[in-house]
Amino acid sequence: MVRYAKRMEQLTNSDIGDLLKLIARPDIISFAGGLPAAELFPVDQLRQACDAVMEEMGKVACQYSSTEGFPALREKIAERMKAKNNIETDADHILVTSGSQQGLDFSARVFVDKGDVILMESPSYLGAINAFKACEPTFMEVPTDEGGMVMEELEKILATTPNVKMIYVIPDFQNPTGRTWTLERRHKFMEIINKYEIPVIEDNPYGELRFENENMPALKSLDTKGLVVFLGTFSKILVPGYRLGWVCASDEILSMFNFIKQGADLQTPTVTQLEANKYMEMFDLDKHVDTIRELYKHRRDVMMKTMEETFPKEAKFTHPDGGLFTWVELPEYIDTRKMALQCLEKKVAYVPGGSFFPNGGHENCFRMNYSCMPDDKIVEGVKAIAEVIKANLK
Amino acid sequence: MVRYAKRMEQLTNSDIGDLLKLIARPDIISFAGGLPAAELFPVDQLRQACDAVMEEMGKVACQYSSTEGFPALREKIAERMKAKNNIETDADHILVTSGSQQGLDFSARVFVDKGDVILMESPSYLGAINAFKACEPTFMEVPTDEGGMVMEELEKILATTPNVKMIYVIPDFQNPTGRTWTLERRHKFMEIINKYEIPVIEDNPYGELRFENENMPALKSLDTKGLVVFLGTFSKILVPGYRLGWVCASDEILSMFNFIKQGADLQTPTVTQLEANKYMEMFDLDKHVDTIRELYKHRRDVMMKTMEETFPKEAKFTHPDGGLFTWVELPEYIDTRKMALQCLEKKVAYVPGGSFFPNGGHENCFRMNYSCMPDDKIVEGVKAIAEVIKANLK
Repeated sequence: MVRYAKRMEQLTNSDIGDLLKLIARPDIISFAGGLPAAELFPVDQLRQACDAVMEEMGKVACQYSSTEGFPALREKIAERMKAKNNIETDADHILVTSGSQQGLDFSARVFVDKGDVILMESPSYLGAINAFKACEPTFMEVPTDEGGMVMEELEKILATTPNVKMIYVIPDFQNPTGRTWTLERRHKFMEIINKYEIPVIEDNPYGELRFENENMPALKSLDTKGLVVFLGTFSKILVPGYRLGWVCASDEILSMFNFIKQGADLQTPTVTQLEANKYMEMFDLDKHVDTIRELYKHRRDVMMKTMEETFPKEAKFTHPDGGLFTWVELPEYIDTRKMALQCLEKKVAYVPGGSFFPNGGHENCFRMNYSCMPDDKIVEGVKAIAEVIKANLK
Repeated sequence: MVRYAKRMEQLTNSDIGDLLKLIARPDIISFAGGLPAAELFPVDQLRQACDAVMEEMGKVACQYSSTEGFPALREKIAERMKAKNNIETDADHILVTSGSQQGLDFSARVFVDKGDVILMESPSYLGAINAFKACEPTFMEVPTDEGGMVMEELEKILATTPNVKMIYVIPDFQNPTGRTWTLERRHKFMEIINKYEIPVIEDNPYGELRFENENMPALKSLDTKGLVVFLGTFSKILVPGYRLGWVCASDEILSMFNFIKQGADLQTPTVTQLEANKYMEMFDLDKHVDTIRELYKHRRDVMMKTMEETFPKEAKFTHPDGGLFTWVELPEYIDTRKMALQCLEKKVAYVPGGSFFPNGGHENCFRMNYSCMPDDKIVEGVKAIAEVIKANLK
């Protein structure tokens, strides 16, 4: 009989896989995934970039290339991080990955042995939880509130837990809550981290999608000891189907990520790297991000307005300043997994909240995405969910 | 101080990374990597395929897609495995990966806990050794000869070793030796495997590159118990820069690979999958493989002839019927790592043999690749190596 590795016991099918299957059904109004709006994909511009790459350096695009990534792309990524996040870095401190999901997988593999502790915001991104599970860690959840991770709670845990090997955070428009850490918390966080010298994975897929108020400094921009590993991605600012992300880290830590990358898949595809690089040379990515931001802001407004008008007062939800998600909390007696099936009967989908807590519980919450549905569907879908919630109230 | 996971201790920089850097120097005659001949890349056809994809289904190509891979591509892969390897399978038993290197990484993660035993041919592919190391296994090497893995030795090991969790083999034009298992060994191997019920990773990147003699049946085609995991790739029959490979396995095993894939990078890029699929619809991949085969056969002939004419009789080497590599064995007192530096002075590169033995030793061997250098460079490079060998003889 075939015997599997013990890690497989922890890796039952994740909600993401099931949900991507649901989303594929065209008749569903889906607030479930984190899909970008496909109507904004710069398809024709990418085709032009591909033509130019194949014309100018087709043989290079088709050949193996270095594990670290295509140098010109890494330069552009480093420049973008300076411009957008005020992070002092350069191409030598960038590793191109197959989406930032790969950066999450590598993070656990670089830092975490079986049984080691990973700290995460409670709740946090379910794809990160799944990736980390493959290293068989112990998860400890750090409580959060409107302003992000609660620093007093973080300090308490660090003061009493010896084997914390990494802290995973999403300070900007968090997945799933849509919340953003305050400036004060960011400074306090770095103070604590510097004291304990624990590596931090700062996942920042949505940072450029701010609709209002001021940018907050990335943790990496406040990092004086080289403890912060910054994960970025083109999935939300360009297209996800190219699977291009990056890791930015200090020398020694990045070299560890490179070792893992070499064994994991040798390198990210040459062709997609060259095409994304060429796209940025030929076209204005900033202008494209403006267009995305504008549409998502509008859709957030439509969703928020409809929720305010139709959701019962027992349903609390966040008002994100950017990103893709809002987070809904219902009375504790409502099970949003059961409610999800009632919603699916009305052809509306969300992600039940329990999946975002590595240690389970919190089945009274759910996550809603507003980036990929047109106005009328948002209104229709939110109204349908509102009806289902009301029917579940005692 | 940052503490890394214990697995990082095993993952010092691999030869592959260093070598890819050497190869990048344009003045080196490199027999080191396993690079396909770039002059044969169907660059213009791939450009046309890209145009067609962007024209017909650009938004799909740019969006997230399923973890398993693009259905039409998986169907074509399954059909190809039937046609080329006589393997009865279908799209449901294919997972598209980021090159077959990713299949190697996943194999260890699916089957191997720390300390578990992996059996490999002695020698074997160094990229597999590196990938497996991340799971902290114990490697046991099974002796090989001209006919492939020695079955009596395999039986001995299996009869006395309790925790063998997987066997990794390359039966066709093995990397690094270029050798192919005999038919008899294949049947005997399956008999032994069926008795012990150990999962087998059959890595087959070069199977289609046979220059002469008859095709041997893939182990997977002889697999009656669903124990063989077949790894395939487009890297050697189309282009490596797209990083497209696949895993073919029975239901339960493939579902385990899917769980790992989901956490590792969600999915292989949609765009490259659609383009490779479109290429196969628009053009004749078989005809393209014929062209590759013809050129590599010619280059093998040039290399073999020059080696026969110039290498001293103390140097023994394999005569591969296909694939990309020949394997050279020198007298035991010669250290091919030191000799590699002497060769680099003459601007010629190979891979020292020690890297292909997971437990070390065998520094008197080296691997040479003949697929990516033109005739005159092959002659010049082989002659230079012959001179260096002679200078090292006692």
